[in-house]
Amino acid sequence: MKFSTDLIPSKVHTSETLSQERRKASFDTKEMDKFINGQKRIDSREKALKIIRQFPDIFDQTDMYYLSRTEKLEKSYKQEKKIVELLRKGEIDSNDITTIVEILDNSTPFDLTRAMFIPTLEQQCNDEQREAFLKPALDYRIIGCYAQTEVGHGSNIRNIETTATFIEETDEFEVNSPTLTSTKWWIGSLGISSTHACVMAQVFVKGKHIGLFPIIVPIRSLVDHKPLPGVNVGDIGPKMGYNTMDNGFLNLDKVRVPRFNLLQKYISVSRNRIVSKPQNIDPRVTYGTMVLVRANITSDTGRYLAKAITIAIRYSSMRRQFGSPGQPETPVLDYPIVQYRLIPILAKTYAMIGMSHEFYSQYEKTASAISNGDFSSLKEMHAVSCGLKRWTSDTCVYGVDTCRHCCGGHGFSQFSGLNEFFANIYPTMIVEGDNYMLAKQVASYLVKSAIDIKLLKSVESNDTTNAISRFLAPSSSASRSGFFSWRNKSASEISTSRSMLLDLLSYRFVTKVANLAAKIQSNSVTMDDSSIESQAISSAHAEYIVCLYHSRHLEKLPASSNLAPILTTLFNITALDLLTKNSSDLYEFTGDASMSHKQITSLQSEYISLIKAARVQAVPLVDSLAVPEEKLNSSLGKSDGFVYEDLIKRALNEPVNRDITGDKIRADFYNNYIGPVLKSNSTRL
Amino acid sequence: MKFSTDLIPSKVHTSETLSQERRKASFDTKEMDKFINGQKRIDSREKALKIIRQFPDIFDQTDMYYLSRTEKLEKSYKQEKKIVELLRKGEIDSNDITTIVEILDNSTPFDLTRAMFIPTLEQQCNDEQREAFLKPALDYRIIGCYAQTEVGHGSNIRNIETTATFIEETDEFEVNSPTLTSTKWWIGSLGISSTHACVMAQVFVKGKHIGLFPIIVPIRSLVDHKPLPGVNVGDIGPKMGYNTMDNGFLNLDKVRVPRFNLLQKYISVSRNRIVSKPQNIDPRVTYGTMVLVRANITSDTGRYLAKAITIAIRYSSMRRQFGSPGQPETPVLDYPIVQYRLIPILAKTYAMIGMSHEFYSQYEKTASAISNGDFSSLKEMHAVSCGLKRWTSDTCVYGVDTCRHCCGGHGFSQFSGLNEFFANIYPTMIVEGDNYMLAKQVASYLVKSAIDIKLLKSVESNDTTNAISRFLAPSSSASRSGFFSWRNKSASEISTSRSMLLDLLSYRFVTKVANLAAKIQSNSVTMDDSSIESQAISSAHAEYIVCLYHSRHLEKLPASSNLAPILTTLFNITALDLLTKNSSDLYEFTGDASMSHKQITSLQSEYISLIKAARVQAVPLVDSLAVPEEKLNSSLGKSDGFVYEDLIKRALNEPVNRDITGDKIRADFYNNYIGPVLKSNSTRL
Repeated sequence: MKFSTDLIPSKVHTSETLSQERRKASFDTKEMDKFINGQKRIDSREKALKIIRQFPDIFDQTDMYYLSRTEKLEKSYKQEKKIVELLRKGEIDSNDITTIVEILDNSTPFDLTRAMFIPTLEQQCNDEQREAFLKPALDYRIIGCYAQTEVGHGSNIRNIETTATFIEETDEFEVNSPTLTSTKWWIGSLGISSTHACVMAQVFVKGKHIGLFPIIVPIRSLVDHKPLPGVNVGDIGPKMGYNTMDNGFLNLDKVRVPRFNLLQKYISVSRNRIVSKPQNIDPRVTYGTMVLVRANITSDTGRYLAKAITIAIRYSSMRRQFGSPGQPETPVLDYPIVQYRLIPILAKTYAMIGMSHEFYSQYEKTASAISNGDFSSLKEMHAVSCGLKRWTSDTCVYGVDTCRHCCGGHGFSQFSGLNEFFANIYPTMIVEGDNYMLAKQVASYLVKSAIDIKLLKSVESNDTTNAISRFLAPSSSASRSGFFSWRNKSASEISTSRSMLLDLLSYRFVTKVANLAAKIQSNSVTMDDSSIESQAISSAHAEYIVCLYHSRHLEKLPASSNLAPILTTLFNITALDLLTKNSSDLYEFTGDASMSHKQITSLQSEYISLIKAARVQAVPLVDSLAVPEEKLNSSLGKSDGFVYEDLIKRALNEPVNRDITGDKIRADFYNNYIGPVLKSNSTRL
Repeated sequence: MKFSTDLIPSKVHTSETLSQERRKASFDTKEMDKFINGQKRIDSREKALKIIRQFPDIFDQTDMYYLSRTEKLEKSYKQEKKIVELLRKGEIDSNDITTIVEILDNSTPFDLTRAMFIPTLEQQCNDEQREAFLKPALDYRIIGCYAQTEVGHGSNIRNIETTATFIEETDEFEVNSPTLTSTKWWIGSLGISSTHACVMAQVFVKGKHIGLFPIIVPIRSLVDHKPLPGVNVGDIGPKMGYNTMDNGFLNLDKVRVPRFNLLQKYISVSRNRIVSKPQNIDPRVTYGTMVLVRANITSDTGRYLAKAITIAIRYSSMRRQFGSPGQPETPVLDYPIVQYRLIPILAKTYAMIGMSHEFYSQYEKTASAISNGDFSSLKEMHAVSCGLKRWTSDTCVYGVDTCRHCCGGHGFSQFSGLNEFFANIYPTMIVEGDNYMLAKQVASYLVKSAIDIKLLKSVESNDTTNAISRFLAPSSSASRSGFFSWRNKSASEISTSRSMLLDLLSYRFVTKVANLAAKIQSNSVTMDDSSIESQAISSAHAEYIVCLYHSRHLEKLPASSNLAPILTTLFNITALDLLTKNSSDLYEFTGDASMSHKQITSLQSEYISLIKAARVQAVPLVDSLAVPEEKLNSSLGKSDGFVYEDLIKRALNEPVNRDITGDKIRADFYNNYIGPVLKSNSTRL
């Protein structure tokens, strides 16, 4: 299909507009990249990009948008094969794989052997089991999955129906899916790939239920990869996203496995049916792993949002609409309504990435304390990880959606890079605890802490309890008015003071917690009745923590750095966004804490002014996030600004347009359907 | 691939749970269907279903989720061919086609010849042109599209670059796309199907620009369907949704067409270059057509939401999680947080469909007045149609998203029926004026009306100006306090009074309008500066209109009808949802209008109680919406309640699972990629 290549855009070329935006930078984007992403991540990004660019026939993803599901899977298997080859040659390690997959920006079919099968083996195998299962898994001589969810059972894992019954006669477990609803479902890497499944099953010994434990079930032959007897396994079919992954189903019809296959770190069953749990291991360590998984989601979401905001900011700075007569049309990013939708997302992207550095270092401290037997910080860490996973995934998914919407019609094209991407990240809101359920867990922790503090019980000192104690501890009430730093302050003073903004955010979450705690204490409601209220409580808490952690990351920057002014502006925008979007919270402050109508509405005006100020640096700010072109995979976000040329190039590559193969498809459509319609002799009655 | 067919769910079968829900109905679902949808729509639904069920090999859509884009297009062409055959046989008419396509729930590739090409010809052809273009188009002997949008030009149609220059020597127009950015883009039915394009072009005669007008350009040969000389045309490639439609691009390299092809109702050019505009036609009538297109979106969105809420309510009434020990798990719809997310969407679905009846009858009155030369009601109708299109499409798209999220993990499967669907309806927010831009048009009308009313200028009397006058006209200020019907009323009185709820909704929008009008009058801001404020103003206005029109539809119901109690509850839920979700608006009421903290928070409690009450009838209420099984195309929403059986049946039909063809695909994956990984002799260094 032909298209004239000498056509140029009318008036200003998009690439020139983008260059003009870049000249507005008041800071060095490389320096910003180093501060926000860190040198370690920059190094690993560069290594991964070198590998990806070395094998374009394998890793180039520009054709992904045209592929059927089967073709997508095939492409991903090809990538997996190359990745394992490079690993075996020692050219890359497991961290490099993570970064490569992150840049390819699609799940790959062995992801779950890496993300869940191997980690479970690492945690729950004894030494012999490590040799038998972990070692070949690390070598990809077996491929595994983690089979927990059942078609009828999601969050409530206690009701999982799959059983593993010890058969003393043969020294085996019989693993069984007795019902339709007990069929394992959604299991990543299971549908086509896995040779082994780590099956979560209700374990029975001597007719007695001893709990839910993981057991390794070989499911496909290592000779020909065919399902083993009693194993019904397949792919669960097409999904909204994640279609490069073979999520699968598994129904086991009384499958026997050796007793040895029950993972034995937390439970063991002897030849003569004695069940024993090791004394020296605190089961709460497994809690720590859940915290890690959520911590990873929390830190991933900032980088997902970085991709979307890069595309949206670059394109809206180049896309022109309306404007003064005789002038080139105005870039849409100059319109307040576009700034208002995009700049807070840019600010939150910085907040989420900045916060994740602090969160990770907190996580490492906690993990190290746990390994020394000190569990004191686990409870807050658990609540914070639930709350942040919830808040960051919501913010990210709907942030990406807003970015797409801000790209107008072209946002709806796959070539925007924002559609399969949106679909792929959507499950972050659902996995590892649906966000609506997590809110209840966070609120329970907060309410319990508040009641303990009010009753002068001792609580662990941490960021959350410190904020609650400050406003709620009986000892502080006498001089409480001093705490309300925003009192009698102008909106412009408040909106540029990091400490006042943090005070407002912390007081807001504490008042919400205190309201619910009072109702719980007076027995007028239970936590179970409070699931709706818990949503707002959990959000308000997460928003305080995000800004607090982000502020700690900013403190690492020398005051003299020329990165400081714009980063401060972004921080203030995030805080004001969170405070003014739900301004009824501020109206509900009472007594010495109360805010005037004027303070509240003026804060909204300050917020708009800061957005306008940040808009000037928007393109350099997204450049600094340094999302590689390969990951953007977007016409609209192209860093060279050749937006429309790229849209056309990609359109010409659409299968129905292609020379020869596309000609054939169109000819078939014409001969079979369109032609007979056009040429029929019969006309309407 | 095998799967045991004798497995049954543990405990209560989902179908039995659904039957139990149906037994709770306090009304007859057929009677409700008749009231909410109307007999006309029921008849046309039944006729369309009969056709669809008569040709399952053509119209069955269950395989749609597995198809590649090319396969999707082929399937849709097959459907189009059958539709045209049935039309030519006189078995269906154009209304039936609309209903059939609505139930198939996918765009089809001739949709735009029906939706825009033919209507434009109907409006803008003279008699000879009707004969030449309209007649063959109605017979599908030519297929056309409406080519307005360009790759670099969306909303601002004045800057469209395509030109049509009159060439006196040959009595032709030369139609040209001079630049890259002038390439027509997104044009439905263009990429593969159309023989003709109705091209919007800047028309030049004697070197003088005379305006933007439609001109018919033949683009593909009627002999072999090949592009004609100078025509570069193709498909724009894969999109988020709408992939059964061949949206296309068109670049014209100085293509000559006869002078006759310029549509001549509003403009004509004579042989000797005289440009004339007919005197007897008011160009404002074209405005009326835009109103109709928006009116259609507004009424479609209610039915889109009906599909999503049917799936979500049915599935959440059957899906069980957690609960009391020893009992079957609790249906998730019994949890307040699930009710809180779904029941207001159910209520708004009823509001949107109910409102659309009133809106349509208003539209018909206006259209009939216009055809008699009376344009007095056009301005409000335009503003209301913009505001309703904006509000209903936002509410619908994010309502569908919430429905999907409430289905948990299975919501992410294509078999939920909610994912391609979400993608297909997403553009309702962008087309016919992006929602963010429409807000400005609505707000401009409202502010201008408010200023006129304050200045005692005469304004047309309509629902909008009446509400503004009531609170804002100088004459009413003396006794204004009487208007604030909610004053000193308890939350339970307010939340069950249709008139007080409408008063609150109308006062809320009027105060917002008045605030901005005062700033405009004092010249402290311009409308251009107020695009952010305009969003909230437009929403508040639309929410009042939705509830007002919905209340008028409810008034048609006899008070004695046993449909009345539940419909009243749904009305109150919608109104309270709109009032309490942004309760800062209520806190901002001042003087005699002000509401106490207690009133506001108690309204929120009343809202929750009403939601709980409506939950009992939720399944009968979605049954009454009568969305056909074919349109749902969903395992989760199956009306017989066989949810998990259907999920498994559909999964087994996934291409990689199928016997023979799927076996081949898996064998290829194994032989080429998985096997070499598993069996390699090299291991990690």
